Amino acid sequence: MDIEKQIEIIKNGAEEIVPESELKQKLLLAKKEDRPLRVKMGIDPTGTDVHIGHMVPIRKMRDFQDMGHTGVIIIGDFTARIGDPTGRDESRPPLTAEQTRENAATYMEQLYTVLDRDKTEIRWQSEWFDGLNLADVINLLGKFTLAQFLAHDTFRKRYENGLPLAMHELMYPVLQAYDSVAIDADIELGATEQKFNLLCGRDMLRYFGKPEQIAIMFPILLGTDGVNKMSKSMGNYVAVFDKPSDKYGKVMSIPDEIILNYYKYATRMTPEDISEIDRQLKSGENPKFIKQRLAREIVTLYDGESAAKEAEEEFNRVFSQRNIPTDIEEYVMDGSIWIVKLLTDSGLCQSSGEARRMLKQGAVKLDDEKLDDMDLNLEINHETILKVGKRRFLKLVPKE
Amino acid sequence: MDIEKQIEIIKNGAEEIVPESELKQKLLLAKKEDRPLRVKMGIDPTGTDVHIGHMVPIRKMRDFQDMGHTGVIIIGDFTARIGDPTGRDESRPPLTAEQTRENAATYMEQLYTVLDRDKTEIRWQSEWFDGLNLADVINLLGKFTLAQFLAHDTFRKRYENGLPLAMHELMYPVLQAYDSVAIDADIELGATEQKFNLLCGRDMLRYFGKPEQIAIMFPILLGTDGVNKMSKSMGNYVAVFDKPSDKYGKVMSIPDEIILNYYKYATRMTPEDISEIDRQLKSGENPKFIKQRLAREIVTLYDGESAAKEAEEEFNRVFSQRNIPTDIEEYVMDGSIWIVKLLTDSGLCQSSGEARRMLKQGAVKLDDEKLDDMDLNLEINHETILKVGKRRFLKLVPKE
Repeated sequence: MDIEKQIEIIKNGAEEIVPESELKQKLLLAKKEDRPLRVKMGIDPTGTDVHIGHMVPIRKMRDFQDMGHTGVIIIGDFTARIGDPTGRDESRPPLTAEQTRENAATYMEQLYTVLDRDKTEIRWQSEWFDGLNLADVINLLGKFTLAQFLAHDTFRKRYENGLPLAMHELMYPVLQAYDSVAIDADIELGATEQKFNLLCGRDMLRYFGKPEQIAIMFPILLGTDGVNKMSKSMGNYVAVFDKPSDKYGKVMSIPDEIILNYYKYATRMTPEDISEIDRQLKSGENPKFIKQRLAREIVTLYDGESAAKEAEEEFNRVFSQRNIPTDIEEYVMDGSIWIVKLLTDSGLCQSSGEARRMLKQGAVKLDDEKLDDMDLNLEINHETILKVGKRRFLKLVPKE
Repeated sequence: MDIEKQIEIIKNGAEEIVPESELKQKLLLAKKEDRPLRVKMGIDPTGTDVHIGHMVPIRKMRDFQDMGHTGVIIIGDFTARIGDPTGRDESRPPLTAEQTRENAATYMEQLYTVLDRDKTEIRWQSEWFDGLNLADVINLLGKFTLAQFLAHDTFRKRYENGLPLAMHELMYPVLQAYDSVAIDADIELGATEQKFNLLCGRDMLRYFGKPEQIAIMFPILLGTDGVNKMSKSMGNYVAVFDKPSDKYGKVMSIPDEIILNYYKYATRMTPEDISEIDRQLKSGENPKFIKQRLAREIVTLYDGESAAKEAEEEFNRVFSQRNIPTDIEEYVMDGSIWIVKLLTDSGLCQSSGEARRMLKQGAVKLDDEKLDDMDLNLEINHETILKVGKRRFLKLVPKE
């Protein structure tokens, strides 16, 4: 593929590329040497649930794979097996090698909903760290200064705010940096908050006399609450293994303000598509429909088109039944019926005059969609709620 | 030995004992368990020259040995073999195992001028660190927080002043602390500036479920310039392997203000002796004689009494010849001669009248000692300088 086209695809959705100026040379070099670039990303196998926030850089890895490059997933099994040596964090007990392997397998199955198995290389930190001794560790640590580490926001803030920062935590960026040396990374993908670690990797490659990797960073996806970053502990996440209907419903629950953000980072939309959606939102189009398209896009990405369609139907059914009493009267519909007749026959309105007035006022809703066509002949094929004003309900049931 | 007496000896010359309150229990426990205490001190085998500043805690170790306890010298061979991983300090190249062994042997020979060989155990850091892997290192580091380390003056000041502080340097206190675990230290000796390291050792023993060591700290001995701490790089040191005459001369060169300091930390004087010397200094006694006694004490400590006596004689000869022109006239003495005759015969004085007047005024000196006995019959057995006033000199040479 043409280099300029590759660059365009790589940049789409990326928040920062350091240094962007080297990206072209890197691609040209791969072409010249007729080899794929090695695109690294690290994962933490202490948990198993992958959410669509985790997938933001993974989807970029897939883009690289589609262009012929190799995705290298580093499984942080070494540190997972250590747990928390401070003993402070009881939620982080050391994992056995077996647990780590199982977690990693589950994790990878989720990544493979997006990644190309044939162009994915899985590497374990323990491959190189099991053999590291104290002298090696001292030599690795000696490449960095404390000032570099405390220039890093996460560490500095914890230190300045008097929060405990255990000494071994300072080692983790160094270890992650060494991963890049071990696998000869050309590019590393990660979240913007991992910038420090990704740049340590760049430095470490240089210390080992290897070409420096390029860091490509992505924003943290907001959770469905629209406030906090998406995380398991906040319960505001859309998991890759959520049922399609759950994915759909969760996406529909996001506040309108972050619709564009999700389109940008959680779908395959092009910048042109995104601009069009932005225009639609600004033109006052009903955000519900724009959000429904988003939900369909996201479900399609992980579960395919037909699953997305089903999820949408189910959502519409469930959504339309929200805020409806459970013991409402049923009305069996045999074929089509004129809306005014339905409203009076069923007793929802006292007279056809009231029925017409209610329709005119927009007070009549079918599964939360306003009905205002006085001439409508209604026909249904699944249970539907007919509502007049705020308190009058009728469950329409198709005749079997 | 009686516990109270032991405590008195231990406290003599110690600047700080942390915690002092536990010292008695520790001694009682050793007595109850009928075992010697294990008294640790670490040395750095990158150099070979030991000076009397290094020996301040070593002399305390000897005191412990005299009370039946065991001195454990830890040789920091492991870190010596790593050198400076930052590449910044070219004066610290990695040492080979062979060089380290040779340095350590030379170092120990110097310590044995004071230590009791039979009660000294030599341990090498590499015994336990060669087998340490990355997981062990992470677990050790995890016991401490960055805040603890930056509460430590040396580290904080370097960080705050923007001086480079390489990450691996933060590991060294942790490693030294682990030494205490490896050898089951009861007590660790060190300089006051090593307080942080010694207390880390205390913490580390606790983390490993072992009884905590007591830290006994000694002030840094000032160099012979009286300003900087004694160090090889400042050239202001008295080396253990200096010739006795050099030791004597270097001690004689210290400024009067630090005489008491040297008595206190560089000799075996008791607190009572020190008080007496303080009294003498304050009473206006000639500091030269007090310093000569100090020099004798120090040389005796390392080279024995007769070497000290010889050093003093040599010093007196050399000292008396200071500030004397090199091309002065010689006068061969054949047996004894009346001083007035000598002064006139040699031409130092114009007449016997002037000779008598000069003697009376105290202006005649023999090797810087005033001569005022007009009836003196002088006889010499080695070259001696006869001086009249400030500018008239004569070298008296015994006839062969």
